[in-house]
Amino acid sequence: MTYDKNAVRSILDHARAAGREALTAPEARGICEAYGIVIPKEGVATSAEDAAKVASDIGFPVVMKIVSPQILHKTEAGGVIVGVKSSEQAAQAYATIVGNARKHDAKAEILGVQVQQMLPGGQEVIIGAVTDPAFGKLVAFGLGGILVEVLKDITFRLAPASNEDALSMLDGIAAAEILRGVRGAKPANRAALAGMIERVSSLVSDFPQISEMDLNPVFATDVGATAADVRIVLDFKPAPARYRPSPELVVAQMTRIMKPKGVAVIGASAEDGKIGNSVMKNLINGGYQGAIYPIHPSADLIMGKKVYKSVKDVPGEIDIAVFAIPAKFVAKALVEVGEKKIAGAILIPSGFAETGNVAGQNELVEIGLKYGVRLMGPNIYGFYYTPSNLCATFCTAYDVKGKAALSSQSGGIGMAIIGFSRSAKMGVSAIVGVGNKCDIDEDDLLAYFEQDDNTQIIAQHCEDLKDGRAFAEVAKRVSKKKPVVVLKAGRTSMGARAASSHTGALAGNDKIYEDVFKQSGVIRARSLRDLLEFARGIPLMPTPKGNNVIIITGAGGSGVLLSDACVDNGLTLMAMPADLDAAFRKFIPPFGAAGNPVDITGGEPPTTYQNTVRLGLQDPRIHALILGYWHTIITPPMVFARLMVEVVAEMRAKGIEKPVVASLAGDVEVEEAAEYLYQHGIPSYAYSTEIPVAVLGAKYQWARGAGLIPSA
Amino acid sequence: MTYDKNAVRSILDHARAAGREALTAPEARGICEAYGIVIPKEGVATSAEDAAKVASDIGFPVVMKIVSPQILHKTEAGGVIVGVKSSEQAAQAYATIVGNARKHDAKAEILGVQVQQMLPGGQEVIIGAVTDPAFGKLVAFGLGGILVEVLKDITFRLAPASNEDALSMLDGIAAAEILRGVRGAKPANRAALAGMIERVSSLVSDFPQISEMDLNPVFATDVGATAADVRIVLDFKPAPARYRPSPELVVAQMTRIMKPKGVAVIGASAEDGKIGNSVMKNLINGGYQGAIYPIHPSADLIMGKKVYKSVKDVPGEIDIAVFAIPAKFVAKALVEVGEKKIAGAILIPSGFAETGNVAGQNELVEIGLKYGVRLMGPNIYGFYYTPSNLCATFCTAYDVKGKAALSSQSGGIGMAIIGFSRSAKMGVSAIVGVGNKCDIDEDDLLAYFEQDDNTQIIAQHCEDLKDGRAFAEVAKRVSKKKPVVVLKAGRTSMGARAASSHTGALAGNDKIYEDVFKQSGVIRARSLRDLLEFARGIPLMPTPKGNNVIIITGAGGSGVLLSDACVDNGLTLMAMPADLDAAFRKFIPPFGAAGNPVDITGGEPPTTYQNTVRLGLQDPRIHALILGYWHTIITPPMVFARLMVEVVAEMRAKGIEKPVVASLAGDVEVEEAAEYLYQHGIPSYAYSTEIPVAVLGAKYQWARGAGLIPSA
Repeated sequence: MTYDKNAVRSILDHARAAGREALTAPEARGICEAYGIVIPKEGVATSAEDAAKVASDIGFPVVMKIVSPQILHKTEAGGVIVGVKSSEQAAQAYATIVGNARKHDAKAEILGVQVQQMLPGGQEVIIGAVTDPAFGKLVAFGLGGILVEVLKDITFRLAPASNEDALSMLDGIAAAEILRGVRGAKPANRAALAGMIERVSSLVSDFPQISEMDLNPVFATDVGATAADVRIVLDFKPAPARYRPSPELVVAQMTRIMKPKGVAVIGASAEDGKIGNSVMKNLINGGYQGAIYPIHPSADLIMGKKVYKSVKDVPGEIDIAVFAIPAKFVAKALVEVGEKKIAGAILIPSGFAETGNVAGQNELVEIGLKYGVRLMGPNIYGFYYTPSNLCATFCTAYDVKGKAALSSQSGGIGMAIIGFSRSAKMGVSAIVGVGNKCDIDEDDLLAYFEQDDNTQIIAQHCEDLKDGRAFAEVAKRVSKKKPVVVLKAGRTSMGARAASSHTGALAGNDKIYEDVFKQSGVIRARSLRDLLEFARGIPLMPTPKGNNVIIITGAGGSGVLLSDACVDNGLTLMAMPADLDAAFRKFIPPFGAAGNPVDITGGEPPTTYQNTVRLGLQDPRIHALILGYWHTIITPPMVFARLMVEVVAEMRAKGIEKPVVASLAGDVEVEEAAEYLYQHGIPSYAYSTEIPVAVLGAKYQWARGAGLIPSA
Repeated sequence: MTYDKNAVRSILDHARAAGREALTAPEARGICEAYGIVIPKEGVATSAEDAAKVASDIGFPVVMKIVSPQILHKTEAGGVIVGVKSSEQAAQAYATIVGNARKHDAKAEILGVQVQQMLPGGQEVIIGAVTDPAFGKLVAFGLGGILVEVLKDITFRLAPASNEDALSMLDGIAAAEILRGVRGAKPANRAALAGMIERVSSLVSDFPQISEMDLNPVFATDVGATAADVRIVLDFKPAPARYRPSPELVVAQMTRIMKPKGVAVIGASAEDGKIGNSVMKNLINGGYQGAIYPIHPSADLIMGKKVYKSVKDVPGEIDIAVFAIPAKFVAKALVEVGEKKIAGAILIPSGFAETGNVAGQNELVEIGLKYGVRLMGPNIYGFYYTPSNLCATFCTAYDVKGKAALSSQSGGIGMAIIGFSRSAKMGVSAIVGVGNKCDIDEDDLLAYFEQDDNTQIIAQHCEDLKDGRAFAEVAKRVSKKKPVVVLKAGRTSMGARAASSHTGALAGNDKIYEDVFKQSGVIRARSLRDLLEFARGIPLMPTPKGNNVIIITGAGGSGVLLSDACVDNGLTLMAMPADLDAAFRKFIPPFGAAGNPVDITGGEPPTTYQNTVRLGLQDPRIHALILGYWHTIITPPMVFARLMVEVVAEMRAKGIEKPVVASLAGDVEVEEAAEYLYQHGIPSYAYSTEIPVAVLGAKYQWARGAGLIPSA
């Protein structure tokens, strides 16, 4: 698409020079025309002949209206004629309108008659754009009227939006079906609508001074889309630029932080219960093999390590400094850290922005920028990176190595991650507290873990994103390689934001997060438990090669609940082909049900589970299996569990790998069986039909977002 | 409201005599008039003078239309005039219309001119009624057009609906706000709409032969509601009557079943692994103290008990017979059970309706009815009633006594209930398998547990309700006294039902369950885990005395997630009064936040939790507490747990009882603390901010449904 940027620039410069923050209708029309946004054709005629010509240039039917500064109520003055269908009628209408106007007010100055294309109706939609503090320019789409205003049925994408993004918006609203034509209406022209969305998104991206824009209504028909009304709001204050190091630099800095050769503990202490003591203990007991330098103004030796008064006194190289001193001493020590060319400052202390001390925090940011020190925190528990045996934290030492990298904005959630990880034997590569996020942010972590071979999944808890656009950009790239799961807290406490446009007022904060996460391939966890379960289960499963999911269950009742959960989690229950149905039936009692779920019935021996699951794994049309186990004397829980692990291993040896999850219904022995299955790569849950399916659903959501399998 | 039932009966009888299943427009109008359902006024005029009179009787404006069998396209014939505003205009219009019609077709037979009230516009809504196989007559309400057709925004209530029910329907749709007036529109007249809903619901209840009814559209304005179009579908086939014993009889029968003096095991066996052996073992090992009679054709002694060939040979009284014999032998044995006047047959055997053997099952029903034997099952695991130490089941013996009565339609889910109950130390009063539900049904269980002092909460898993109306009626009564929680499986597999009306086609099965459960005060569990957690947690908490919930948290991050969960679960976060804010602030650090959540900040000593929670319990404006604990060295998990139990007990001693739930974030020690809290009446969860709030939310839902506190 080519755009006339010069035309837009000229209009905006003119408005700026005039000190205006809103555009006039002709200016807004001019901008639309420059960006190919279709608006109704119109012209002003100054004679009957002229009217005939203008009208036939536009095409019939047209509506004609008096243009006179003195005549405000045009209809009352007889100054409006609709449905003009020919040149003759146009000439006649000109005469009638002017005559009526003169009769109405003999002194009125008559500038001419406006001739406008009459729109053919169609579905009313809204296309708009807003400027979000975190995400910057966003384009919005919704259906006109109550659907947007009452039901808030609107969807957002980062601008500029690709054609694919724009098309996805048409399906991104609850009432999407309406655009496909209901009640005998013709479907809307999707290409025309998507094109208009793209154009609007390019316009606001090219001209950041356009802060809000509404095309409302846009009339969408089967042949095109026309914006009947345009509203553009300007804001010439430049957005503050945020410092963003290059991806290479981020990785280099984060690598020094995660794999340090030396660690300084500023405020190290020999006294039990002090944070500086806990950090020392955790570094030592956690098994960190690099140099540890306690920093303290007076002590000589702490926990057997030589103490230095300042990091600058340390002879060796230091990569991170963990701060365990009160807020008021942090800035001075940070300067020394900068002078020592330490890569990262782990700012455990609180007493900064979270308590209102914004100035104190900004001072740290400036020092960090000046010396090129990356800051983690402040107001954090620290961080863990298990491949380095590094516990740079005052919490307990954590040592269960694995492939999940987690982070949290809040200390409490960090502790919950630690507790769950240990309890569920979920190995982690990292747990990072980001706290006030004055510098190191979710996107920095994404960039590091993207290339970190020790990490297979990234799971983050956040309450806000300081730079949502940077996050979205990095997440979009990273999620193609590794699943990114985010628990966005505060989703229901959307503060209404001041906004002067329609689209702006509709931009509920959470809906933007929802849509941008989706656009970026991020899996959104709906609860803390989901975040933890997804982090635990997703990396264990192979990536599915297609959308066909099958349920094999010993309990019909579980089959029904598992089916419900499949629908809830966007999974596709495969329609059972006749030959496969027959193949399953060979293994199950005559009163069992093939179809999907495959109901093998209760009371079956282990071989029935074995045969049906083997068939499910072998048949290439099936891409993932959900197992429903029913505890019986004939097939006890651990017999089932061992057999399933065997069958999966047998198939893996033949090169067949599919995700398998299981729901176990039975007496308490099923807990041991579920744990055994989990430890062998089959996410399994006792007494729950929902969680295993949610975990599989999250894996699917990732695979679809990363383009590895088609959308369902 | 008074209705002219005779008029309706006469119209319906006439249609029946004519062999019609649909009513003509005048018949439908007649029925509406008889039930006070407002329709547009109309009349037929046969002269200009007549037209003037009819029109002025109706009130202006009117629309006038030619009535002629030969003129189908009235507008083309010049046979329609809208907006007639006076008697003179009406007389004139009559002449014009008749003149045009004659010009159009000189041979046309002109019967007159129809004069109709012109409707003043307003919001289009739909009011209708359907006949559901399980629930019988239901009344439906939604907004007209795409909201109902595309977004399926419709709500149902059992008919007849009370005025309160009808009013609740106006708020029971997603687009409820529209009725309150948006975009400058006046609000709809709620009394008029509710009145029309009530009238429709009474009509279909009074005349069951009206199987479906549509008022579509109804124009709702600020002064009234008028049904512009009426469609009525009839079905003269009588619905099969279902046998329903009186509530007193149900309780008497179920009491004998739950507290039997003697139990027969038909098909008792000494052989390990046989169902008849497992049942014997469970009865004996479960500690049942009544008489146990093994029934077997040849054995003498089984597990030390004298064996009888038939229940009829047993000298003592028997209250239940547990069947552990193949399906084909059940009917004969059941006759003997009937002759022995045994109250309940526990039909473990499968091989009936679930395998297609409907006739076999119907035979059992007939025998049961003939002899007054209540049948549980068939195709079940049996049941447990812990107050009688009764394990009439082939599953494992279960002995943890408590106050929750659970049931399941499926055996697998029953086993999950048993496992979870044991694992979570959730005491139960009963676990009942209902299986094919050929007789004993969820409503029978409700009726028994309603008056059972050993039961405080009833939690049921079901896939369908054989008699939804009976269930709803009983549940509405029982839920006023004891919480009723239902997990309705199969909610997403709504089979599209054939329906000839508009409302009928919209009656998605699950939406009906959703609305009827709500109307009946039933708490709907969304997942198996929710059913179990609600059954466990709800009875432990006192009933809240009002809607004000407060969060007290050591972790700000948990506070945000707990707030999200409050919104998700319909809880009201109390707006913090200034004096209470000041009172909380006395206990927390200056950088903590009072307000709600009360953020006491991490790193606080036990006294801070103690003081703030005590204040929260003491202040009468607060009705429930949600605690967010953050594991620190200063306040370790068990210190927190013991302290909370102490504070709650201290307040209880003073007569203050409020529901308290807790979310614990921390290392694995929080699991022990959560269990300790749970065992002391504070539902608590490690690593989850959602589940504790969901449990509190369910308690609130019950209290509101039972009318104990106002709706939030």
